[in-house]
Parts: sequence; structure tokens; C-alpha cells
Amino acid sequence: MTKTTTDELASKGLAAKRAARELAKVTGGVRNRALLNIADRIVEQQETILDANRLDLDAGTEKGLPDYYLDRMMLNGERLEAIASDVRGVAGLPDPVGEVIEMKTVPNGLQVGRRRVPLGVVGVIYESRPNVTVDISTLCLKSGNAVILRGGSDTINSNTALANIIREAIADAGAPRNAVQLIESTDRELVGKMLEAREYIDLLIPRGGQELINRVARDAKMPAITGGVGVCHTYVDKEADLDMAMDIVFNAKVQRYSVCNAMDTLLVHSAVAPAYLPKMAGRFAEAGVEMRCDRRALSLIGPSNGSGVLQVIPASEDDWSTEFLALIAGVRVVDSLDDALDHIETYGSGHSDAIVTEDYSAAMRFVDEVDSSAVFVNCSTRFNDGGQFGLGAEVAISTNKFHARGPMGLKELTSYKWTVMGSGQVRT
Amino acid sequence: MTKTTTDELASKGLAAKRAARELAKVTGGVRNRALLNIADRIVEQQETILDANRLDLDAGTEKGLPDYYLDRMMLNGERLEAIASDVRGVAGLPDPVGEVIEMKTVPNGLQVGRRRVPLGVVGVIYESRPNVTVDISTLCLKSGNAVILRGGSDTINSNTALANIIREAIADAGAPRNAVQLIESTDRELVGKMLEAREYIDLLIPRGGQELINRVARDAKMPAITGGVGVCHTYVDKEADLDMAMDIVFNAKVQRYSVCNAMDTLLVHSAVAPAYLPKMAGRFAEAGVEMRCDRRALSLIGPSNGSGVLQVIPASEDDWSTEFLALIAGVRVVDSLDDALDHIETYGSGHSDAIVTEDYSAAMRFVDEVDSSAVFVNCSTRFNDGGQFGLGAEVAISTNKFHARGPMGLKELTSYKWTVMGSGQVRT
Repeated sequence: MTKTTTDELASKGLAAKRAARELAKVTGGVRNRALLNIADRIVEQQETILDANRLDLDAGTEKGLPDYYLDRMMLNGERLEAIASDVRGVAGLPDPVGEVIEMKTVPNGLQVGRRRVPLGVVGVIYESRPNVTVDISTLCLKSGNAVILRGGSDTINSNTALANIIREAIADAGAPRNAVQLIESTDRELVGKMLEAREYIDLLIPRGGQELINRVARDAKMPAITGGVGVCHTYVDKEADLDMAMDIVFNAKVQRYSVCNAMDTLLVHSAVAPAYLPKMAGRFAEAGVEMRCDRRALSLIGPSNGSGVLQVIPASEDDWSTEFLALIAGVRVVDSLDDALDHIETYGSGHSDAIVTEDYSAAMRFVDEVDSSAVFVNCSTRFNDGGQFGLGAEVAISTNKFHARGPMGLKELTSYKWTVMGSGQVRT
Repeated sequence: MTKTTTDELASKGLAAKRAARELAKVTGGVRNRALLNIADRIVEQQETILDANRLDLDAGTEKGLPDYYLDRMMLNGERLEAIASDVRGVAGLPDPVGEVIEMKTVPNGLQVGRRRVPLGVVGVIYESRPNVTVDISTLCLKSGNAVILRGGSDTINSNTALANIIREAIADAGAPRNAVQLIESTDRELVGKMLEAREYIDLLIPRGGQELINRVARDAKMPAITGGVGVCHTYVDKEADLDMAMDIVFNAKVQRYSVCNAMDTLLVHSAVAPAYLPKMAGRFAEAGVEMRCDRRALSLIGPSNGSGVLQVIPASEDDWSTEFLALIAGVRVVDSLDDALDHIETYGSGHSDAIVTEDYSAAMRFVDEVDSSAVFVNCSTRFNDGGQFGLGAEVAISTNKFHARGPMGLKELTSYKWTVMGSGQVRT
């Protein structure tokens, strides 16, 4: 770690902390003006952004980065328009700051309430997706928080260009430009330093793979959101509407398989497995889903026919606890709701789990007993999402139980203070 | 660290974790039955408890523990009646578990809600006050959480007797006795092991002095409540009703000085300081309060007259950031609301701060700008308390901004899960 790198974190951390205090006094109108400025300028100054992005893409191509990765890094006019449109959407959301959560008058006449306030400084470590730079900056700004951004080194030029535009747009609205700080050092040790920087960072959000999240969970000295890994189940009960179960399971696995709320393991009650599994296997085969099956599921579906259409192999023990993020599904036959609940408790990650059933008591038990951030009856696990739940925006999905669980929207980026208005009361 | 000690934490941790899962399925009626059993047995079996307590007191006397400390350790029939009465009070509080925080139907017809659930296992490290053993066990039981207790070694016999009674009372109500685990090892290294035990403990609450709290803040590997230190201010504005200010300041300092929400520093606007401070000093002198004054306050009050009534000395820089927990007050004259806000921001601990004023704008600015767990207008800082705020009970006062801030009641010992009831919805 060079001295320069440590200095950068310290100076930007201090600047963010001071800006957070200033920003806490800025009205929602000014914060919204800043957001609309950002949206306008991302479109107006797109040449500057795209030039910087071109530098990143050229360097990435030279390094031999794979195409899917380069695609994630890539910006163009259309993508920038979409990003700007999202920013305008955030400006239009209700202001979480200043909301009075409850206000009551207690017997001695004191008016006691809780008022939402920003958390302070949010630190975010993320991979090489420049849209995250805008996304996180604007959600933090809307919720009155300063932010320290540490994006992937492969998009450092794009991120720098975007952060410059964002900071100018904030300043022109009359808010503190230092509320957004981008760490420019690409020194890898900087992540370790961020995990220690509890004097500057009030909440740390890692947006990345399992390795980063595990490291943050283990080493962060400040509160952190360390969820995001979803080993998600759908249980098809013996009283399921099997057509509905087919659609729900297909959607949960196939509609977007690279995300945390996609289904990983299909559990099917043995009473309906013979009628259900062969048909479901057919649907999966059409979509190119590989099925990793327990012994009983295997015997019902049959082994791969070798045509490359039906992809069926025996599951390994590890498959049950794997987040596939791919067109792969574990498939297991169970003999009861209890067996399904046991499987979910043993192998799940507490993210998103669903039951398909017409049996009232089975549905109630599933909702009561599955200890996950979101539990679903007769619908797809893919709905575990801030937008779908009506939060308007999503910062992350938490599988922690502390502070926030499941999709985190703007309110989950706030704290509160107690306000007590009196007329001379003393305690006796 | 002996192997036995590590084994005790591991085995009790695992037992608590399993019991937490069982307890999450137990109805509020059964949990209340367990609480009433506890209250009954503490009274019925008081001889057993008092015998154990006598052992602790004898050992403490032999060790030469000071009287005030022995008094904190001491139980008697009256104190046990009071403890039992508090437990009955907790049984009578609304059940936080299962409360639906919000439930709405989103445009596709999904019914989306959040339901309160227990956090899991709460770990508590506390000093030699046997009442805390009952207090924390019952609040955790009421909120559906298992608890791992690590009390001070000086009351190990009292705590063991109480924990045995509590566990039997829980079992007789049909709830899992393992929901309450008392660590019996008095090995001091055990605290360090608890800070590491994130596989068993979902939330750690240290109830003790600054040293313990700092250690938890620095080293705990799980979420922890690390507040509790209050450097609290009362600012007497130039538009204050000075009689009201006298009563409020006197109450904040004198009514109970050994607690975190007692006033530490009195800030007085220079325009009213000549009229206010000499009178206030007289009130303080009657109550034996030592005043540590800045230069201007000193010149208004005058130095100690040597009679031992008026105790006035110059303040040191350290006094401004000290939580006195004693009949001592810092006193400073300021020239404006801004100077008062600066002082609070510089020296305060974000716990409890008050303004006394009849000026609307000054009151509004103080509430807006002071970044503390509770801000007060025209009343005593002593009101920062779960009971006073209508929470029914208090586990701790948090000066963290994450999860809970200020007094933590039963709801603050819970998390939530999202519940989503559908009729075949898939995501498009």
C-alpha cells in the first residue's frame, strides 16, 4: 500500500464526512434539483463519458477480457439515456429524509416522535459496471447520504468521468459536491483499508461476488450489508396446481438466471412427482436447463437421452448448496412438507423461497417456518426485488436480519432520531 | 483459555441456536405463560435465590469489594418482588412477534407484507447485577429470541440460581428451556471468544462500562449495540424562560446522576448568563454539584468561597468530553446558538441533548441540526428512556445509527421477513 493510497482514502473520507453533515441540512428540493441536473448532464455530456469509456474498453480488449465482461463495462447513447431516465425516477420518489415515523403525546404531555435522518457516509465496493456509479450516487444523494465509491479498476476512466459530472451537477444545485467521492487509486489493498475505515464510513455495501461479500462479513469494522447470495428453492406441494407450478418454476429458473433471486433447487412432493417432473423436464429441456437430480427424480425423468435436449445428471451433495447463476437446477423429490422445510433450512441461504400449493395449512406453515428474507406462496421467487415490492428503488438485497432484510430501498438507507418537544417537563 | 471454556460456549451456543428455531414457532400465549411462571417462581423460590446470593455477597465481602458494589449485587425479598413485578409487566406488553408492519397489494395482485420475526440469539455481557439476568432473559423471551448470558463473575451463584429457575419455568410452559443459556465459566478470556462467535450470536449487547463497549465496537464479529455513553448537554438559549431552565437543568443533573442520560455540560447564552448562572450555581450548591467552568462562567459565578457549599473550579479541556456519572457539571458560556451547536458536535457523544428556549426558530434549528439519538426542547435529557417514550421496556440505549437508535424496546429486538401471497404470478 503506497502512502498516496492511504492519503486518498483519508482525505476523501474526511471530505465525505464533512459533506454528509452539510447534506443533512439540504432540503429535499435541492437534492432533487441535483438529481435532475445529473440526469440532464449525463445526456448532454455523453461524448465525454463515451470517450472515457472507450479508453476502458480498449484497455480491456488489450487485456483479453471476455466479451460478456466487456459488454457489462460498455456504455452507449442508449444506455446513458436509460441511466438518466432512472435518475429522474429516483428524483420523483418520496423523500425519505425528515419523515416522522411516529409521533405521540405521552401522559406528561411530551410530544415524542422519531424522525428519519440520513445514515451519514455510505461506502460501496463494486465491480466494473459504470452504471452502478450513477445508481448508487443518486440513491445516496436522494436519501441525504454522502458516498465513497470504489469501483472496479477496469472502468476507472468511465467512473471518473461520471463522478466528475455528478459532482458538478450537485454543486450547481447548491449542495456539497464532496457528497460523492470516487476513489481513483486502483491499488487492490485499498479494499482492505476501506474495511477498517470506521471513522469515515457508516455503512458498507459490497456489490460483487461471494468472495468480496465473505471478506466484508469477516473483516469490516463497520456495519455492512453482506447478503446477496441466493440459494433459492421452489417447493411443489402435493396439493399444487401443477400447471401453475410449471409456469412458476419455469419463470423462477429461466426468466433471468444470472441473478440472486433465480431458483436454484426444485423440490417436488413424491405424490405429484410422477405427473409433474417429466412434463417440467420437457419445459426445461426446451430452454436448455440442465437438471441435477436426486435418485428418485432421475428415475422419473430418465437419464439424458444423449440428444442434447434433455440434460439430466445426478446431483452431487454440493449442488444443493450452490447458487448456480446459470441454466442449471437441482431437482429433488421429497415425501412431505417437513422434508422440504428441512432441506431449505439445511441448504438454503435465507434469500428467496417459494411454495406452490392449494393447501391452506401448508401455505401458512411454509410462510411461518421458512426463515428467509422473502417467502412466496404461488408465485415466482424472481419477485424478491425493491421495484416489484413497491419500494421504488433498490440498493441491495440483504440476507442479514439486522437493520434491513430483503430489498433495501431509500428508507433502509436512513436512521432516525427521537425528537421530544416539551413545555418544562422534568423527570420525577 | 481452557478447552472446557471453549466447549461450554460452543455447546451452549449450539443449544441456544436450536432453541431459537423452536422458540420462533411458539405462540405469544406460551411465551407469556413462561414469563408469568418465571415471576411466580422468583417469589416462591426466593430462599434458594437468596442463599446463592449470600454466597456471592460473602465472597465479595471477603474480597473487599466496596459497599456500593455489594449493594448492586445484593438481592432481598423486596427486590425479588420488584423483579417479579417487572416480569409480569413484560408479559402484559403487546407481542412484537408476528406483527405485520405493512401489507399492500401491488399492481399485479401480489399481497406483499413485512412480518416481524425474532432476531435469533442475543448475546449479553453484563456486570455483577443479578437483576439483569432476569431482565434480559424476559425481554428476549417476550420477543422470541434465545439468549446467551455472560454476567459478572462476582454474582455467578445468584445468576446460576436465577437461570435455573427461569429455564424450568420456560420448560413448564411448553417452550424450550435452552432458550436461556448462562455461561458458568468465569474465565475472563471468554468475553473475547463471545466476540468471535458469529455462528451462534446474532446480536451482541454489552451492558457495562466504556472499556467493554469500546472493546465490543472494535472486535465484535457480529452486529452489536455499542452505545450507552452519554456526554449530554443542555443549552440555555437567550430566549429561555430562566425559571424553567433552572428546573430542567437541575433535574437533568441531579435527579439521578449515575445514568447515561444525565446532563454533563451546561451551555448558557452570554446574554442571559449574568442573570442565570449565579442563581443556577446556588441551586447546584444546595445539591452538592461541583461546577467545572470556562473562564466567563467562572467570573460570573465566582470561585469557590471555600465554605464547601459553592464548588466551582476551572474546567479542563478533557471535562467537555467527559461523561461524569457524578454530581459534576461542566459549565460554559457561549455567544450564539451556532456556538452551542458547534460545542455539542465537537464534544458530544450523540446521546441526549436539550435546548431551553421560547424562540421558535432556535428550537427548530436545534432539533434539525443536533445529530443525537434524542433531542429535547424545554424538557430534561433524563427522559431518554424506553419507559418514558412509551416503549414499555428497554433493553439498551443505542447511539449507533444502524438498526436502532436511542431506547431499544421489544420491537428493536426483532427483524422482519417479507411475505408474498400470490395466485400464480410470474415475472415478465
